[in-house]
Amino acid sequence: MRLYSLKRLFVGSPLATAQARHERLSKMRGLAVLASDNISIVAYATEEILLVLTAAGTAALSLSVPVALAIAMVVGIVISSYRQTVVAYPEGASGYIVSKDNFGPIAGLTAGSALLIDYTLTVAVSVAAGVAAVTSAFPFLYPHRILLGVLCVGGLAVANLRGVRETGRLFALPTYLFIAGFLGLIAVGFARYLWEGPPAVAAPSLPTVEEAGVGVTAFLLLRAFSSGAVALTGIEAVSDGVKVFKPPEVTNARITLLWIGVITATLFVGVTILADLYRIALREEETVVSQLARQILGGGAGYYFVQVVSTLILILAANTAFADFPRLAFFMSRDSFLPRQFGSRGDRLVFSNGIIILALAAALLIVIFYGSTHALIPLYAVGVFTTFTLSQAGMVRTWFRRKSEARWWWRATINGLGACTTGVVTLVIAWTKFVHGAWMVVVLIPLLISIFYAIHRHYLRTAEQLSLEGYGGPPPIRHTVLVLVGDMHRGVVQALQYARTISPDARGVFVETDPDKTRRLEEKWGKWGCGVPLVVLTSPYRSLLVPFLEYLDHIQAQGENHMVTIVLPEFIPARWWQHLLHNQTALLVKGALLFRKNVVVTDVPYHLAR
Amino acid sequence: MRLYSLKRLFVGSPLATAQARHERLSKMRGLAVLASDNISIVAYATEEILLVLTAAGTAALSLSVPVALAIAMVVGIVISSYRQTVVAYPEGASGYIVSKDNFGPIAGLTAGSALLIDYTLTVAVSVAAGVAAVTSAFPFLYPHRILLGVLCVGGLAVANLRGVRETGRLFALPTYLFIAGFLGLIAVGFARYLWEGPPAVAAPSLPTVEEAGVGVTAFLLLRAFSSGAVALTGIEAVSDGVKVFKPPEVTNARITLLWIGVITATLFVGVTILADLYRIALREEETVVSQLARQILGGGAGYYFVQVVSTLILILAANTAFADFPRLAFFMSRDSFLPRQFGSRGDRLVFSNGIIILALAAALLIVIFYGSTHALIPLYAVGVFTTFTLSQAGMVRTWFRRKSEARWWWRATINGLGACTTGVVTLVIAWTKFVHGAWMVVVLIPLLISIFYAIHRHYLRTAEQLSLEGYGGPPPIRHTVLVLVGDMHRGVVQALQYARTISPDARGVFVETDPDKTRRLEEKWGKWGCGVPLVVLTSPYRSLLVPFLEYLDHIQAQGENHMVTIVLPEFIPARWWQHLLHNQTALLVKGALLFRKNVVVTDVPYHLAR
Repeated sequence: MRLYSLKRLFVGSPLATAQARHERLSKMRGLAVLASDNISIVAYATEEILLVLTAAGTAALSLSVPVALAIAMVVGIVISSYRQTVVAYPEGASGYIVSKDNFGPIAGLTAGSALLIDYTLTVAVSVAAGVAAVTSAFPFLYPHRILLGVLCVGGLAVANLRGVRETGRLFALPTYLFIAGFLGLIAVGFARYLWEGPPAVAAPSLPTVEEAGVGVTAFLLLRAFSSGAVALTGIEAVSDGVKVFKPPEVTNARITLLWIGVITATLFVGVTILADLYRIALREEETVVSQLARQILGGGAGYYFVQVVSTLILILAANTAFADFPRLAFFMSRDSFLPRQFGSRGDRLVFSNGIIILALAAALLIVIFYGSTHALIPLYAVGVFTTFTLSQAGMVRTWFRRKSEARWWWRATINGLGACTTGVVTLVIAWTKFVHGAWMVVVLIPLLISIFYAIHRHYLRTAEQLSLEGYGGPPPIRHTVLVLVGDMHRGVVQALQYARTISPDARGVFVETDPDKTRRLEEKWGKWGCGVPLVVLTSPYRSLLVPFLEYLDHIQAQGENHMVTIVLPEFIPARWWQHLLHNQTALLVKGALLFRKNVVVTDVPYHLAR
Repeated sequence: MRLYSLKRLFVGSPLATAQARHERLSKMRGLAVLASDNISIVAYATEEILLVLTAAGTAALSLSVPVALAIAMVVGIVISSYRQTVVAYPEGASGYIVSKDNFGPIAGLTAGSALLIDYTLTVAVSVAAGVAAVTSAFPFLYPHRILLGVLCVGGLAVANLRGVRETGRLFALPTYLFIAGFLGLIAVGFARYLWEGPPAVAAPSLPTVEEAGVGVTAFLLLRAFSSGAVALTGIEAVSDGVKVFKPPEVTNARITLLWIGVITATLFVGVTILADLYRIALREEETVVSQLARQILGGGAGYYFVQVVSTLILILAANTAFADFPRLAFFMSRDSFLPRQFGSRGDRLVFSNGIIILALAAALLIVIFYGSTHALIPLYAVGVFTTFTLSQAGMVRTWFRRKSEARWWWRATINGLGACTTGVVTLVIAWTKFVHGAWMVVVLIPLLISIFYAIHRHYLRTAEQLSLEGYGGPPPIRHTVLVLVGDMHRGVVQALQYARTISPDARGVFVETDPDKTRRLEEKWGKWGCGVPLVVLTSPYRSLLVPFLEYLDHIQAQGENHMVTIVLPEFIPARWWQHLLHNQTALLVKGALLFRKNVVVTDVPYHLAR
């Protein structure tokens, strides 16, 4: 009961099934809710590009701008492609469902496992970046970043276990404040640059291209591009959630998608250009965005505003995964690819198990990777682009089956272009980031798929074996009850009475280790045995189990379908610690008999008052 | 079964009860077996005295000799005193039994808890000192001393779980080699000193008395004395084990005791004088004995011999506690002051639980105190001397009740002198070592006593409540069986058949969360319900338990002594991991009903083949 109270404190009172409701959102609110994941990348994507280029020296940093433009182009292509998906799946379509419908379960599971990995990384990366925004503003917190990250994940988990219902209202604000803040930052940044000329700060003391020893190779550029490609994270959110929009849902979703693309591309390219103009150098303890805001806006209110909205939108982005992951797990569990436990709603109407697993996995990643965004990024993008590719390729196939629809060929072409682009990007990322961590995902996806299949197979086989189709009914049984007796006391007498009630063939069984004890027991049995016969087994090795199991074999060998109920008289102490003071014979017997056929083990409890 | 094989590998095949045997020992072997604990202190006691005196500068180190002589005097007194105990308790007498018999349970439990703490510290200190002997010879092992200590404790535990039976034969050798080795070391040491004069080694660069700032106060001397007082550890071993000697047991035990006292005092004082003559300085990584042996014998075979025999006797000393602790735990468990589990012999005829608990506690101490002998010593001596005092004071009382025996007054006087001496020493140790760790023992002993009493009270009350004395027999019962049904499959059909077999009043209970599901179930029930009626309960909050518990209340409210058996149809997967794929409803239901009266919970398993 104490555990239960604790749960209530954190999770709140149970909600009735009838309380489930679905709120529809306007475009304004829909954008706020669905865009946070994608737009939040502005807070860290530029830095990831610079991190790669810095290996080739200061001069190479300027290449960040063309790299960002290339990424913005890919954003454009993918957004256009998903605008077609929305038309085909007005009910909402996750990459798992689109891939499964079009290419069968293997493709579906590939997308599914990639998405599950993605959502976990969304939480880990967003929280790590959010914590980085905080520790940039308050450097004394930097040593505690792992703890802060884990606490943040825990807080999100608790909030989601309670059920975050104010989705639209509360969550619109940070997204729009973030957009406003970053548009302001970019505007002031450009204005000051034009007005005051290049900043007077000392150029960072990085080696020049020649000194660095690493030339600007095509591989380096591709690697920078791969790092920046995280900028596409979360684009699929709108196509998953078409139904949350007010009617006309499809039109609203398409318009929202377009806006998300425009906003992300603008802010991302803007920040990248500014970082170049203001010659921002990479620092371990302060993010690029924080340095930029400090230089452009000074260290005052403007600066803190940018840091606060960055943190808020990143937490919001992490929060989206807490809705997406459990929902996908629910779909996969419904198809028997994940354990049933992911399919049931808790008493607050949320998929509690999915939330808990996601939180544990994300917290583990934060701890393992020391709460570093940079370390997590290489794992991130592979999964994202794998899903994009499968999902869009699936759409091409969908259009070919829906040739009756208007402009199907145009939509198929756009989806095809999207699939090819993201397919190439997937390979580029897997190649250039392989040694930096992408290999883990490359290994993990097939591993997860085989686990999902093993689960599926188990459920199918279980259903087959339990099916009533063609079942002839259970055979008639003979029933014997054995009461395992170690001593004679009230609990045993009660158990004997119970045994006699449930079967005419009840026997007491005593394993002898000391003949004197047997004599004392037999004396008491005459008076208290309830008329049940007593069987005494000898045990030269003092083992309780071995002689008992032999006797059981002996009984069951007498005929098939001989059901044996083993009654264990057990007294239940009044307090938990008192359990430690008694031999756990019952547990031992149950463990030994768990896999035995036609045996039922029953504790008959005798409750102690104190 | 795999766990079982692992146990066999480490612990060996079970032994029959008839295989228990008792070997009697000659004086020679008896000394070897019973003396190791006491004699082994020569390997570290001198160092502990020097460690305290060093605070007062180099010159103060010479005070170690008078301190050692004072300790040797106490050894003499205590040995004389225990020689009287042996006469009174020829059956052997642990401090626990002597104190309990003479002063009642509180004194007995005080001695008992002090002894349990002692034995644990014997293992921890001896192993730590043994490892120090090894790392002194092989300094590259020094960083791994904690691991080595833990491995050594683990090895001793495994050996004792198997049953170390070759007690006399195998164990005589190290003790005599140790005595021979140290006598040799002392002889050569004095000879070389007389021949070659004071060693030419540079005096250690310690501050002189004046510089050190700490004067040679009486408190410092008492503290040095307290540290050296560990030299009395293990003296009680002979009086505990009188019965292991060949007849005449008492005479043999008394002679052996005398010899142990002479040997320990000689070696201990000898090493202390040599350490002073050779101006041994304290070093973190090398023991005083190792430095002494290196200087006197050079770094060759003689040196390694001394280190090897030191290690062996210390391990032997630790091993004695593995016999003593479980035996004391057995006595205390027989008196219901410790859990019953300590009272049963495992299948190798040893008290397995006592061995395991001792090993865990000692390993924990080694880890917590970084495997340092110095850190453990302050905890050690308080317990040792508390037991001495109680045990000898008990003997005084014994003699006053046995006034008929010859020379009772003489024996009483000697025991009285012993009790007074050790009583004063106990206070001195508790006072001078309080802040260094003795406080833990001062706190722990009353804590343990209260735990022992709580355990005792629980067993008494349990026995009372279960006693058949004045028991009127169980009331006649009404019996209802409820089969908790979630779905309709072969396992449920089998459970229904079982329910019908054990009671004419069997009912199926289904908790409805979805009316469609209820309809489907009811359809199947007609064909497969085995004639058992179906009860459908509604659940607005999707909880399975709450409506079910309410229904149970309702049934049981109909009359007293209404026994309800709850049958849970459970299918058992073929492999362990598959358990994770099914809701653990059975566990949940059992947990909720654990403390409920007149309710029996029964799983009826249906075994899946694959």
